[in-house]
Amino acid sequence: MIGHFITIEGGEGAGKTSIIQALEKRLQQDGYQVLATREPGGITIAEKIRQVILDPTHTEMDARTEALLYAAARRQHLMEKVLPALEEGNIVLCDRFVDSSLAYQGYARGLGIEEIYQINQFAMEGCEPSLTLFFDIEPEKGLRRIQANKEREQNRLDLEALSFHEKVYEAYHILLKKFPNRIRSINADQSLKNVEKEAYQIIQNYLEA
Amino acid sequence: MIGHFITIEGGEGAGKTSIIQALEKRLQQDGYQVLATREPGGITIAEKIRQVILDPTHTEMDARTEALLYAAARRQHLMEKVLPALEEGNIVLCDRFVDSSLAYQGYARGLGIEEIYQINQFAMEGCEPSLTLFFDIEPEKGLRRIQANKEREQNRLDLEALSFHEKVYEAYHILLKKFPNRIRSINADQSLKNVEKEAYQIIQNYLEA
Repeated sequence: MIGHFITIEGGEGAGKTSIIQALEKRLQQDGYQVLATREPGGITIAEKIRQVILDPTHTEMDARTEALLYAAARRQHLMEKVLPALEEGNIVLCDRFVDSSLAYQGYARGLGIEEIYQINQFAMEGCEPSLTLFFDIEPEKGLRRIQANKEREQNRLDLEALSFHEKVYEAYHILLKKFPNRIRSINADQSLKNVEKEAYQIIQNYLEA
Repeated sequence: MIGHFITIEGGEGAGKTSIIQALEKRLQQDGYQVLATREPGGITIAEKIRQVILDPTHTEMDARTEALLYAAARRQHLMEKVLPALEEGNIVLCDRFVDSSLAYQGYARGLGIEEIYQINQFAMEGCEPSLTLFFDIEPEKGLRRIQANKEREQNRLDLEALSFHEKVYEAYHILLKKFPNRIRSINADQSLKNVEKEAYQIIQNYLEA
């Protein structure tokens, strides 16, 4: 593995999508090969698994079944897209990865961070991100941003109760303590331009280290 | 959980299907409520997951993705079919369960019995079989039975090389040592009538204990 596996995490409305696009561009201008992706990322098997997860008729979906399906889709996306790109020396910027499962399913849905981490370790088989940027913004502010942005289609998670998003936020702060070397927090309650600047700086320092 | 969760395991051609049918009948005649099932067992979400696993166009399917999908289908079948039947006091006879994953994926495919057991423990959440019957027949003899039985449609596993089935057989013997209290071995290299008699006797002893 000669590339760099960087993941971007944060609650809804933290600005992940816009900033990943900007980072991709800047890093390419610096001469790096960059792959920006997010699960299921156009990988057929992962897309099919995601369809099973999101099918609105699947009202009987158990939370543990869902967690196993997310881990399965993660594995396939990793093997077919992320790993080949890393082997070619790319910087991979992945919009959400294992920490999202730990925060949403492990903590907010109450399945247990350790338990979700275990099934994801099986899925990752050691191919874990070496750097994770957490875009830190209070859920209320993040959600207000989403509501203001009418172009953005709301998804199922956007519509969860505020208390759920607060649990997710709490979870990310637990993860920051659990993985202090890997996860770096960035204040996302400022202009996108500034968040981007901080994120770029952290990535630069990491690449030069 | 007031019922009894009994699983039936063994290689191809061990006679599982016929004997489960016979056992179901005899136990019903004894006055027990019995549910005979096998994954995905008509459970929509589990069936959809199985379709993803078995789709012949999914040539890129990674072995770990497959293992996670089997665990996901297991969870959903357990929650929607097995657990409700156990709560109603049924004897559940399940044709293959966790030990099949341990033998086929964990050992024969080389993913590791312990690792496959961990993701399955997540899926089972303590709802493990209390009795498992292992129908013991050497793979060569089992496969010969299948070939002789032209009515039986051959599946993907039947067609694996003999060496694979020998590994599965080896795996079941490892599991017998690992779970000596739960798994009972029955010599399946005899008439179905005799195998059924032994299986019925073990179940009776278990129910009376």
